[in-house]
Amino acid sequence: MSSMWGKALRISLFGESHGEGIGVVIDGLPSGFEVDLAQLRAFMKRRAPGQTPWSTARAESDLPKILSGLYKGKTTGTPLTAVILNHDTLSRDYQNLQDVPRPSHADYTGRLRYKGANDPRGGGHFSGRLTAPLCFAGGLARQILEAQGVYLAAHIKSLAGIEDRAIDLARPPVEALAQIKDKTFPVLDDDQGQKMIDLVLEAKKDLDSVGGIVELVAWGFPAGIGNPIFGSLEGELSSMLFSVPAVKAVSLGRGFDMTAARGSENNDVPYYDGNQVRFKTNNGGGIDGGISNGMPIIFQVGIKPTASISQAQASVDLAKGEDTDLVIKGRHDPCIVPRAVPVVEAATSLVLLDQLIQARGLQGMGEK
Amino acid sequence: MSSMWGKALRISLFGESHGEGIGVVIDGLPSGFEVDLAQLRAFMKRRAPGQTPWSTARAESDLPKILSGLYKGKTTGTPLTAVILNHDTLSRDYQNLQDVPRPSHADYTGRLRYKGANDPRGGGHFSGRLTAPLCFAGGLARQILEAQGVYLAAHIKSLAGIEDRAIDLARPPVEALAQIKDKTFPVLDDDQGQKMIDLVLEAKKDLDSVGGIVELVAWGFPAGIGNPIFGSLEGELSSMLFSVPAVKAVSLGRGFDMTAARGSENNDVPYYDGNQVRFKTNNGGGIDGGISNGMPIIFQVGIKPTASISQAQASVDLAKGEDTDLVIKGRHDPCIVPRAVPVVEAATSLVLLDQLIQARGLQGMGEK
Amino acid sequence: MSSMWGKALRISLFGESHGEGIGVVIDGLPSGFEVDLAQLRAFMKRRAPGQTPWSTARAESDLPKILSGLYKGKTTGTPLTAVILNHDTLSRDYQNLQDVPRPSHADYTGRLRYKGANDPRGGGHFSGRLTAPLCFAGGLARQILEAQGVYLAAHIKSLAGIEDRAIDLARPPVEALAQIKDKTFPVLDDDQGQKMIDLVLEAKKDLDSVGGIVELVAWGFPAGIGNPIFGSLEGELSSMLFSVPAVKAVSLGRGFDMTAARGSENNDVPYYDGNQVRFKTNNGGGIDGGISNGMPIIFQVGIKPTASISQAQASVDLAKGEDTDLVIKGRHDPCIVPRAVPVVEAATSLVLLDQLIQARGLQGMGEK
Amino acid sequence: MSSMWGKALRISLFGESHGEGIGVVIDGLPSGFEVDLAQLRAFMKRRAPGQTPWSTARAESDLPKILSGLYKGKTTGTPLTAVILNHDTLSRDYQNLQDVPRPSHADYTGRLRYKGANDPRGGGHFSGRLTAPLCFAGGLARQILEAQGVYLAAHIKSLAGIEDRAIDLARPPVEALAQIKDKTFPVLDDDQGQKMIDLVLEAKKDLDSVGGIVELVAWGFPAGIGNPIFGSLEGELSSMLFSVPAVKAVSLGRGFDMTAARGSENNDVPYYDGNQVRFKTNNGGGIDGGISNGMPIIFQVGIKPTASISQAQASVDLAKGEDTDLVIKGRHDPCIVPRAVPVVEAATSLVLLDQLIQARGLQGMGEK
Repeated sequence: MSSMWGKALRISLFGESHGEGIGVVIDGLPSGFEVDLAQLRAFMKRRAPGQTPWSTARAESDLPKILSGLYKGKTTGTPLTAVILNHDTLSRDYQNLQDVPRPSHADYTGRLRYKGANDPRGGGHFSGRLTAPLCFAGGLARQILEAQGVYLAAHIKSLAGIEDRAIDLARPPVEALAQIKDKTFPVLDDDQGQKMIDLVLEAKKDLDSVGGIVELVAWGFPAGIGNPIFGSLEGELSSMLFSVPAVKAVSLGRGFDMTAARGSENNDVPYYDGNQVRFKTNNGGGIDGGISNGMPIIFQVGIKPTASISQAQASVDLAKGEDTDLVIKGRHDPCIVPRAVPVVEAATSLVLLDQLIQARGLQGMGEK
Repeated sequence: MSSMWGKALRISLFGESHGEGIGVVIDGLPSGFEVDLAQLRAFMKRRAPGQTPWSTARAESDLPKILSGLYKGKTTGTPLTAVILNHDTLSRDYQNLQDVPRPSHADYTGRLRYKGANDPRGGGHFSGRLTAPLCFAGGLARQILEAQGVYLAAHIKSLAGIEDRAIDLARPPVEALAQIKDKTFPVLDDDQGQKMIDLVLEAKKDLDSVGGIVELVAWGFPAGIGNPIFGSLEGELSSMLFSVPAVKAVSLGRGFDMTAARGSENNDVPYYDGNQVRFKTNNGGGIDGGISNGMPIIFQVGIKPTASISQAQASVDLAKGEDTDLVIKGRHDPCIVPRAVPVVEAATSLVLLDQLIQARGLQGMGEK
Repeated sequence: MSSMWGKALRISLFGESHGEGIGVVIDGLPSGFEVDLAQLRAFMKRRAPGQTPWSTARAESDLPKILSGLYKGKTTGTPLTAVILNHDTLSRDYQNLQDVPRPSHADYTGRLRYKGANDPRGGGHFSGRLTAPLCFAGGLARQILEAQGVYLAAHIKSLAGIEDRAIDLARPPVEALAQIKDKTFPVLDDDQGQKMIDLVLEAKKDLDSVGGIVELVAWGFPAGIGNPIFGSLEGELSSMLFSVPAVKAVSLGRGFDMTAARGSENNDVPYYDGNQVRFKTNNGGGIDGGISNGMPIIFQVGIKPTASISQAQASVDLAKGEDTDLVIKGRHDPCIVPRAVPVVEAATSLVLLDQLIQARGLQGMGEK
Repeated sequence: MSSMWGKALRISLFGESHGEGIGVVIDGLPSGFEVDLAQLRAFMKRRAPGQTPWSTARAESDLPKILSGLYKGKTTGTPLTAVILNHDTLSRDYQNLQDVPRPSHADYTGRLRYKGANDPRGGGHFSGRLTAPLCFAGGLARQILEAQGVYLAAHIKSLAGIEDRAIDLARPPVEALAQIKDKTFPVLDDDQGQKMIDLVLEAKKDLDSVGGIVELVAWGFPAGIGNPIFGSLEGELSSMLFSVPAVKAVSLGRGFDMTAARGSENNDVPYYDGNQVRFKTNNGGGIDGGISNGMPIIFQVGIKPTASISQAQASVDLAKGEDTDLVIKGRHDPCIVPRAVPVVEAATSLVLLDQLIQARGLQGMGEK
């Protein structure tokens, strides 16, 4: 009960960082949707490692091979499977990790959970590399959403404490957000972005790492989608977002700040904009009672500083039963936040599409 | 796909605020567990309304009637059902709400979702009153957890910006936390608690409301429980926590603060304490890679100020298609946070027990 | 993981035969559907005991009380709950069964499964009485199906070896089938029905019981609904049908007979009837590859002779660890088959409606 | 919601008959289990085509490549993925089938379900070829079951009306059954088997096909596993069995015959065999009330004659909207029953292991 997800749209993620390959099966896709593979590759490239000074040097092509579910360029509606074979693996880097867990990684907990039988190389199934097939699935879901008039984009809201330009929750700058996907560094304010980059490079020089906050905005998502209580839109979103490695916090709309506000000032008041109901503010992030209210869906995701750092750290030797020192030799990002931006977009796309299909039984888009 | 939850342990919540009754079916309980009904009632009383100046005047006994699943005082293992009949309902208070949605409530979204057919009285199925059967189910789960050596307690970490005493994440004050259940106002530092109460009463006087943050600590939960990716412990927790009305943010351990820290300072370093692996810090909140690491599980839940306020507010009249004013006449809490404390405990208990049963197949506790 | 069922439409069954009450929560119903309660009661009455010489003398009104999910006579779309309180229980009848299991009942297996803690009175949660709330849920689903143009009816195909008139699978007599619900004994050929009744009464006189086969026909169900492999229409149907106590076999269309046929003679050949595709035969029972083909859906359900018989039987005394004799004193049907007819209809209605909602996202039937 | 299955143990099947490849992801396997790959290949070979005169001439190696979940020869506990690439595909054979559906195939229903976008070549995702990865998953589950002392074997109970030697349900010949896996033709009585083969070859000569019944026996499965009502062992088994293409009927134990018996003669009476409870007969097939009773689990699966036959058949041309004739040119089995035997074993293995894991939380078999 772990690596499968979804209700109407479902995915099954598989693979280990240094195994034969990783991939995803996507079940429940509407049939007859023409997939833009070039766009999908471009989307995945935003997550790919080895492109900038601030990401790991591991250079994988990460080109997925589609084994099933696509026929004459369109989704068949039956399971669509994509596989990425692993090539550039340096497993000797991780040899010593089997007994000496990396702090704040899943090495120790994974070993307990799987009684020592899980693949320890590069984090195995726990590796951030599993976000590649997640991006494949989410990138495809995103294309289908766009065909339904639903758009989304994320930016780095803060990195190591440096803030990007704040957005108006009720009127987010959707044009600017839509262009972030073409930027090397996904922020609204490039000057602030440069300060962030400087901090990342400084941390890298110090053999250290930094974290940050990603903020996502989705617009065009229809009102009235979601469910009360356990099937709530925010519950489904948060559950999926916490599946992204290094995510440690999720907040909607105005987030934790609203806990210090008064109701009179925090309530989102509806009004008629022509014959359309809108809300004067959007502190709730576009969701009331688990259901979309037609305003942009906005949330923030807190990402911890990369656990893998090149400094020597203390740890334990589980084989010897004693304390020890650890130097992590593998390649790793001094800051995962920029690469997390498309991952958050992908994760969100899957949740929103699953909800749309549940509501509308969107089984096919083709004709016959 | 809404009001049912769970994998090995499952619950089905039902009812509307002003309908015939509300309740819960709990499926998958271990058989043969002797339920302490007095303790369960005491637990539910912590959530019950009408007890203090800062909660709604609605005075319900909220005594659940158990229809099934309990035989000779023990769980049968087959579905356990509890029903709470509604008595003290003043539905005329809510008459005008069918067309004029209360800001930041689910009135508008519920109407869209259910095409106007849902019960609008008192929020219907969206009402916070549904947390009563949730507390019943969670209070029972908690007893089973305690029989397995797992304990948990929550406190108000902050209310309207006033902070309770901060806890050491690696060594939380478990004795003090365990006593919070006997307090009228669930904080560690009663002086700070008094300041919070003052703020609530001031907001009430102003016909306004305030929000806050609840922090939960669970200890004794074994290491190695949970799953990578979609079945992660934090994903399951957050999904359930966002099911609690008014929850808008969830963070683990050190929370959003860790996004501004460096890895070298944020990583939780393991060491041997005798032959037991422990961690010097607990910034991650006791979970690594979706799996418990044996440290206390700690998270924070952000709760917005109560949306129902007695001040006049703007809204829309959906029948007339025009803007209007709204005065909410029903009874409501100026601050829901104190009553949310046991609800967060209940929600957490359900998740932790579900995980334990998944891991251990805990089908029965009896003998034969 | 036991008494909850469904994907888009979900139900949670609860209760024990001699406990406080039994009932069902139905989640995922379309909102705004006007329920015909009189018709629902009439449907449930077909299953109710105590009405004829061939059913148990237990006379329960079995009038369900609706606790939630119905507002102004229409479904709200949030969970609809019905409870039937138990009144006419003679638990002393079952006292000796705790240690001496009734042959071919779940007494022994239930005791092992729940480690002796389950409620043994009258079979507890295993009782056929749980089919009352199943009929409530299915009777409601049936009304919604009829509003979509989908109809279904079942008859006793055979009882103790006596056959009802055989139906033409490709052109079943739908008018005659639709009238079966008004008959005391649900067969097409009343003369054959009288022979069956005679056999039942003979078995009753002998303190014995008989079994039979129920055949269901559904018409008007659209083509193209269902799924390949695990979500197949026949898989979903069979899984639900085996949930009905005493069901031991399920076959589609021509059933086991087709295993002795040749393909050339068994294949259902399509042809154009005007511009409508139909099939010359319907040996497959209206389902190909897990998906409806537009022909009537037809299947048979084999029901064993009632396990409870009044004759002395051998058994074991689990407390003493020795063989013993057993005389079952409770009231029971010499033949459950006639009462199983509406249960099979109810079970089928739930599956077909769940499939329709999955395919079409049928969330609401109201307007606004 | 189609090609994923399971609760504690889950699988995701993917692929199309003539696409790039087919495969399976298996999630929830106990970790640390040493897989016998040679045995697994031998098991899969029993299903493989092209080996005998009575199976299709398509000769695929069907050697699965394992992409994940196996490390140092043992299961990691994280998703295990196997892929079989397609090589010997003659897609031109199927060109005309897109518009002219083969009778009693899923061509017509699949086209409706997926609005014409599904892959029609060789049946696409509906192809019997998908039973290859099902056998991979089931063959692995079977090895784990054997390590728990649970064994199973199936035989052809009847083929085109010719019966294999009948088994005693209470004392099935487990040694003889265990040897069937080494036979070319899976029957207990080879003389009867030869008659069956003769009939198959006769049907082949007539460009026709025949069907049959497969009977499975599982022994060593512990008593007390399963659930009442919807999670019943027989419900889970039947749902899975109907997922196997061409299966049209499932019966337990004595099957439909018991519907003509009396209770006094059909009830399975328990007795003490030493200090072990056993049953004098096993008409119920080892399951009472959804839960195993410790007797062998026995059921029968009715398989229709292969729908693909080489004779000319009538059909419709959906593009032209008129009746037409159809000659199927592809390769196909005149009788699928012998190859269905290991598939039924595989399907059953998955269900039984899923149930065991649910009951016991069998997360790992390794040591630490």
